Amino acid sequence: MACSEFDFEIIKKSKSCNARLGIIHTPHGNVKTPAIIFCGTKATVKWVTIEHLKQENTQIILSNTYHLLLQPGPEIIKKAGGLHEFTGWNGPMFTDSGGYQVFSLGYGGVAAEIKGVRLPKGKKSLLRVTEEGALFRSYIDGKKVLLTPELSIQTQISLGADIIVCLDECTPYNTDKMLVSNSMVRNKRWALRCKDELERNGNGKQGLINVVQGGIYEDLRLESAEFANTNNFDGLAIGGSLGKTSDEMYSIVKMTKEMLDETKYVHLLGIGGIKDIFTCFKYGIDTFDCVSPTRIARHGIALVKVKENKIRNSNQINITSAPFTEDFTPISNECECYTCRNFTKAYIHHLFKAKETLGGQLISIHNIRFLNTMMENIRKSIDNENIDDIEKDYCNE
Amino acid sequence: MACSEFDFEIIKKSKSCNARLGIIHTPHGNVKTPAIIFCGTKATVKWVTIEHLKQENTQIILSNTYHLLLQPGPEIIKKAGGLHEFTGWNGPMFTDSGGYQVFSLGYGGVAAEIKGVRLPKGKKSLLRVTEEGALFRSYIDGKKVLLTPELSIQTQISLGADIIVCLDECTPYNTDKMLVSNSMVRNKRWALRCKDELERNGNGKQGLINVVQGGIYEDLRLESAEFANTNNFDGLAIGGSLGKTSDEMYSIVKMTKEMLDETKYVHLLGIGGIKDIFTCFKYGIDTFDCVSPTRIARHGIALVKVKENKIRNSNQINITSAPFTEDFTPISNECECYTCRNFTKAYIHHLFKAKETLGGQLISIHNIRFLNTMMENIRKSIDNENIDDIEKDYCNE
Repeated sequence: MACSEFDFEIIKKSKSCNARLGIIHTPHGNVKTPAIIFCGTKATVKWVTIEHLKQENTQIILSNTYHLLLQPGPEIIKKAGGLHEFTGWNGPMFTDSGGYQVFSLGYGGVAAEIKGVRLPKGKKSLLRVTEEGALFRSYIDGKKVLLTPELSIQTQISLGADIIVCLDECTPYNTDKMLVSNSMVRNKRWALRCKDELERNGNGKQGLINVVQGGIYEDLRLESAEFANTNNFDGLAIGGSLGKTSDEMYSIVKMTKEMLDETKYVHLLGIGGIKDIFTCFKYGIDTFDCVSPTRIARHGIALVKVKENKIRNSNQINITSAPFTEDFTPISNECECYTCRNFTKAYIHHLFKAKETLGGQLISIHNIRFLNTMMENIRKSIDNENIDDIEKDYCNE
Repeated sequence: MACSEFDFEIIKKSKSCNARLGIIHTPHGNVKTPAIIFCGTKATVKWVTIEHLKQENTQIILSNTYHLLLQPGPEIIKKAGGLHEFTGWNGPMFTDSGGYQVFSLGYGGVAAEIKGVRLPKGKKSLLRVTEEGALFRSYIDGKKVLLTPELSIQTQISLGADIIVCLDECTPYNTDKMLVSNSMVRNKRWALRCKDELERNGNGKQGLINVVQGGIYEDLRLESAEFANTNNFDGLAIGGSLGKTSDEMYSIVKMTKEMLDETKYVHLLGIGGIKDIFTCFKYGIDTFDCVSPTRIARHGIALVKVKENKIRNSNQINITSAPFTEDFTPISNECECYTCRNFTKAYIHHLFKAKETLGGQLISIHNIRFLNTMMENIRKSIDNENIDDIEKDYCNE
């Protein structure tokens, strides 16, 4: 039994693989899993109103602690009554620990979703990692910030999301095994400090997720997984370096998932490509998150089933390209989103040519609905034991 | 009786001034006047979906023939079934003639709403004005385009708006009276060519508006007005140079309006400030248009009643300014728009600080509702003969 109002229930397990149907119970409602979590990095899913998110069947959104810690700051959001009140989103919400951005920026590999970074290119913002925490420089005003496990949790308490995450260091691919090991072991100590902080200052409603690290090393993943399994966290996440190629990633995710307590909710951090989802839900991953659906939308890329794509063997069509100038059909004939019910590809193509933001808004709305429907279809296929039948609609050969 | 499905009906005249309540009947529905027309320059009201426009009680929108002639071109919109089909807006719609942009760009005074102009700064796009029409260079591809009265009307027929406008030359403030006179007289010939073109190729459903010009000269305005009154147009518009100051503008609008057939619908082109509306509806102006409500919104400026403004004696508050960092109240406590029902000034302030587009979207939605409600209040005040009572709510001393 979880130590918070958060709970995870497995409804059904697939007979053919490790996929499962579940329900995450939170104080702001339930999430049917497998599910995708849409990224509202700075307390908004870019360009999309809450109203449209809801209309397109969005179950849960995510905000980034790193960004909100720096702007507007947790005090403001706490005074507003938490992120739910602040943003108007009254459904389930997830925040990460802030660690991923601190470390991905810090090691020079600037995560693609981080916009508006004001530090000179190439200048690393991470100053020092010690037992105490990670010292980094704010991209807002250049001030030094020490992100400790306690500060991460205090911030996430102020934000008030339903699912929150322990601070962990995220080592890059090329790190020496000894350093990955030291980092993973320190992550365990940080996780216990996070748990203590939440127990001391939390309201008992937030579910705490522990991130399994260990890079590409099986023994380190196992040590991290055993810690995660035995410390009564509400859920687990697979994070850190997952290798260089998709295949390597899939094999690490599969290996790691098999090490985890199978009754626990498991999130796969920062991964949410269509092929990734179709591969990893079969390993038993319950939720995914990725900035890509709305980011590609702002560049004119719409998601479609492979069989609907007349141009190439892919899930993506580029609405800004010439063939759509006079295409008076919706992005998808079978999609029921606001965009597909009301607008043609020719109109959206025009909006991009005219540099009108509405074009990116309309494709964002479509991509959100597309993925929500895809996840619904995945859930149905688990229920009906016909997973393989739908995969060919969504994934190219 | 009008020569199209367009019709204008006066419901009531004020006892204290020339204000009137009216209804514009169009094939896509009615517009209660006095009304404001929101600008959807390039076939979209910037950053706002049709759904939000409707929710906020928008009656009628405008698109610019100049922009749509160049991108995507009238053929595409015609193939789409017209602007209503293309944009998804199924209510009343207005297009201008394209003349204003050709001439305002051409004389070097680049209209503020024209974005994305690729010509070098200061380079004039207007090449020549002859009896035939205005030759200008496209800002899209540099090609020469001859905008004739016939091309303007053919384009507006393809666009299919309910209210369309005769091509006219719009001379700037500092123009010699003889040149203004010659231009105004040529405008009369152009208007007759427009009327002929519409009768030849139109579907009988579009109402044709003639623009009264003549600059700041009473005798020229009178000559233009007499022409407009006696040539069976569906409606009239006051355009051209209206002087240098607001007071001069008001006196020219008043003078010109008094010259016009009082049974005709009259639009005031490109004017829609709150003080302008409150002054000019009393002269009997029926509709206004202005890009400002959504443009200022994208820069963080929200419209409020003067009495609601705690900071200064004005209709505008700048949500990006420091006092709103911790202001957990809506833009307006009495406003019923989507934004005010769901979001605080602190949240919108954060969105602007985080460079999130949603901030501008939310203020745009508010400003649209604010003005639609203001116009509704104006209509009620005409009906109730208490115009002066509401003016003090909206206008500073």
